Amino acid sequence: MDNLQALQERLGYTFQNKELLIEALTHKSYKQPYNNERLEFLGDAVLDLIVGEYLYKKFRGYDEGKLSKMRASLVNEGGFTSLANHLNLGEHIFLSNAEENNSGRTKSSLLSNAFEAVMGAMYLETGLGKVQEITVSLLEHVHPDISLDSLFKDYKTSLQELTQAHYGTTPEYQLIAAHGPDHKKEFEVAVIIDGKRYASAQGKSKKQAQQEAAQIALEMLSKELK
Amino acid sequence: MDNLQALQERLGYTFQNKELLIEALTHKSYKQPYNNERLEFLGDAVLDLIVGEYLYKKFRGYDEGKLSKMRASLVNEGGFTSLANHLNLGEHIFLSNAEENNSGRTKSSLLSNAFEAVMGAMYLETGLGKVQEITVSLLEHVHPDISLDSLFKDYKTSLQELTQAHYGTTPEYQLIAAHGPDHKKEFEVAVIIDGKRYASAQGKSKKQAQQEAAQIALEMLSKELK
Repeated sequence: MDNLQALQERLGYTFQNKELLIEALTHKSYKQPYNNERLEFLGDAVLDLIVGEYLYKKFRGYDEGKLSKMRASLVNEGGFTSLANHLNLGEHIFLSNAEENNSGRTKSSLLSNAFEAVMGAMYLETGLGKVQEITVSLLEHVHPDISLDSLFKDYKTSLQELTQAHYGTTPEYQLIAAHGPDHKKEFEVAVIIDGKRYASAQGKSKKQAQQEAAQIALEMLSKELK
Repeated sequence: MDNLQALQERLGYTFQNKELLIEALTHKSYKQPYNNERLEFLGDAVLDLIVGEYLYKKFRGYDEGKLSKMRASLVNEGGFTSLANHLNLGEHIFLSNAEENNSGRTKSSLLSNAFEAVMGAMYLETGLGKVQEITVSLLEHVHPDISLDSLFKDYKTSLQELTQAHYGTTPEYQLIAAHGPDHKKEFEVAVIIDGKRYASAQGKSKKQAQQEAAQIALEMLSKELK
């Protein structure tokens, strides 16, 4: 039996129903009559609402397009893996030996799913308020400066985390073209992952174009890996 | 000024902050400094959680794949339009004359968005509990028999509602092929909308294949129309 006390201290919440927490930490490879997939389904929606409301209230001047974009950059496998790592969640996941030997404990999909499931379990036990408090505090700790700019930077970081976890490689960015006069240049950049060109995007600077391309690749990869 | 009293009675909730309700009912064509798009962003996440939790608790034996499928069939433009129509929401939307003359008041995208926005506004004012109570009661009224079977039936209905609203046509289903021996036949059916083949799917009966194809077409169309 794992020491769940340490996890609950890092989480700032002690479960009344330990079985619920154990279910949230049980990967399907562990071959129990239960696993964390149903709780992950619930937790995913809980986190979507919490992050959505947080952004809605924090960025009152932003339209729903910007809000959606910001949320997409926080609510994804890479983003949740960062939060899971902050809690050392990987140590506490119950998984099969095969999955363990397959580096399961550090896989971003497992970590992200377990994080969602733990939040779903907490929501069931204690309601939205407590989960909201804990998630927002984690979010602000991991992303001390949430802004459209800082989240753009995070696209590249999230993409790198994802490709390292799944392919053991780092994305490369290639300048494809630069258009327009000097004072109004547009750069086009492609992102290459494991030798394959995933996405390209334009921007007013190379950096901006890279960030845009990373975001598109992140969405594509997240879908592929689902 | 519209009579919002009747709407609030049908809704079973009286807003303290009338301006919040008015914002939720204001389509962007109405050219005010505010419109309902930000509230729709919030309401969308609120409804996703409410419907997700409802299904999670009601169908304890279902895995997350089935739950996601069921939720997708309820949480979409067609589904929300049914709920909006049940509240006569269309009567109360503030929109431009041009949009009005363009049948805006009965457009499923406008109705569905306004429904999400009203639920988002209610959530901001009163929290999750009240919105949950109202949404679940609406849901059970409009779908008296929520089950995987009845929701499958709903895919065809939702698709038809959507295509009628957007193209003024009804989807057609074409049998493409039947495979396998008599006792284990698989049918392949395509769905044709406005002369274009949208999706095809296989099933153990023609009906099941139609339903599967309708679901795929529904997802494709919802994305196209976004």
